[in-house]
Amino acid sequence: MGEFTADESHPRYNSLLSRHKLEIAASKGMLADSAMIAHGRGEAFDYLLGEESSNNAIIATKNALAHLNAAKRPIITINGNTAALAGKELMQIAEALNCPIEINIFYRTEKRISAIIEHLEAIKTEHGITTKILGEKPDAKIPGLEGPRANCCHEGIFSSDVILVPLEDGDRCEALVKMGKTVIVVDLNPMSRSAKMASITIVDEISRVAKNMIDLIESDYKNEIDIDFVNKKNLQKSINIIAANYMS
Amino acid sequence: MGEFTADESHPRYNSLLSRHKLEIAASKGMLADSAMIAHGRGEAFDYLLGEESSNNAIIATKNALAHLNAAKRPIITINGNTAALAGKELMQIAEALNCPIEINIFYRTEKRISAIIEHLEAIKTEHGITTKILGEKPDAKIPGLEGPRANCCHEGIFSSDVILVPLEDGDRCEALVKMGKTVIVVDLNPMSRSAKMASITIVDEISRVAKNMIDLIESDYKNEIDIDFVNKKNLQKSINIIAANYMS
Repeated sequence: MGEFTADESHPRYNSLLSRHKLEIAASKGMLADSAMIAHGRGEAFDYLLGEESSNNAIIATKNALAHLNAAKRPIITINGNTAALAGKELMQIAEALNCPIEINIFYRTEKRISAIIEHLEAIKTEHGITTKILGEKPDAKIPGLEGPRANCCHEGIFSSDVILVPLEDGDRCEALVKMGKTVIVVDLNPMSRSAKMASITIVDEISRVAKNMIDLIESDYKNEIDIDFVNKKNLQKSINIIAANYMS
Repeated sequence: MGEFTADESHPRYNSLLSRHKLEIAASKGMLADSAMIAHGRGEAFDYLLGEESSNNAIIATKNALAHLNAAKRPIITINGNTAALAGKELMQIAEALNCPIEINIFYRTEKRISAIIEHLEAIKTEHGITTKILGEKPDAKIPGLEGPRANCCHEGIFSSDVILVPLEDGDRCEALVKMGKTVIVVDLNPMSRSAKMASITIVDEISRVAKNMIDLIESDYKNEIDIDFVNKKNLQKSINIIAANYMS
């Protein structure tokens, strides 16, 4: 894997940097076969969204952070793609929230879990982060799911009241909502099943979302739950942005 | 690489089959690192288009085939993704048109070219196809392009009058148009530079396009050039389909 040499002034800098991070993650064994395809789908939606955090994405992000702050047992889950793209930032957010993170991958193999943990532990050491990483030894199951994707940790996902699950699959999102949790999803497709199913959907790219959350944490932003927030209405605004880009 | 075992009744059968074909192609060294991401982008647009050939895609396909039929020196170009997804069908179309195919990859390496040729030669043997495969020894350059992506064969792309270039990059599409060729592009994103630049853009998935062309060839369809065809107007119809899916 070569050094990343693109200049920050390159119009596709962020896109190239993301791809580079994913290629490194793939070479470390962190990603499922479908990870690159999933990333490409995200790229297409991000292109349609104008590759920036919309106002409604910021509103959803603020509300999500307020819910995580107010939670008794918040949890941030990380899969291979999010570990590659925003592992450091998500652990920094967990550190600020004083909550653990849990590795939560759809196509679970011990080898991939280990590769992701190794990647995240290296980031922890480099940046002095102390966040606890769960997921290596699942000891609970998400009711209503079959097979390895039901596995989770009792101390983490299972007992959480507010859960941030970037890039979640629709079935598992539904199962988590049915457990009574406030489920925060980050998804670039505002029409996906997860997007429609979640309590709060942030239609934005995960590394932008993580940076926005860190900015909010570091600012003196008054972090209150938005009682007027209606996820369906917020989602519709993202749909409208895409439709407007098409109609112009 | 395991056997492909999904049932044809599976709602995502075609999507899973395409992924399986690409995974095999990747394991054979036929694909660039960015191939899976490109496929994922295509999947997102195909999802927005309803995963079927629209009426306007059929109109563009018919017109494209009429232009290929009427050409003095037609050529069909194939890259790694199209070789994996529709290699057999594109060679069958070339056989019917009595034209060669040319391997034409953006990130050109001799290793990838050889892997693609090996893949296509195996298909030729298996299906009794005699189409000539060009691209191994480029001896001409596309004017206006730099580096390996300018390379092409004099007997093929360089001397062609009508060229089918599935999944082409914008710069090369523009350079081919500037050479005075009728450039037929297959692209799922109706707003891409290639889509806007091409003489005829088929906004559809390559394996569906190839099957549609074979059906047209095998039927007694009267194959006339559509003198009322305006690519921009045809493209707008695909944009409208996507916008309508968003607005509903």
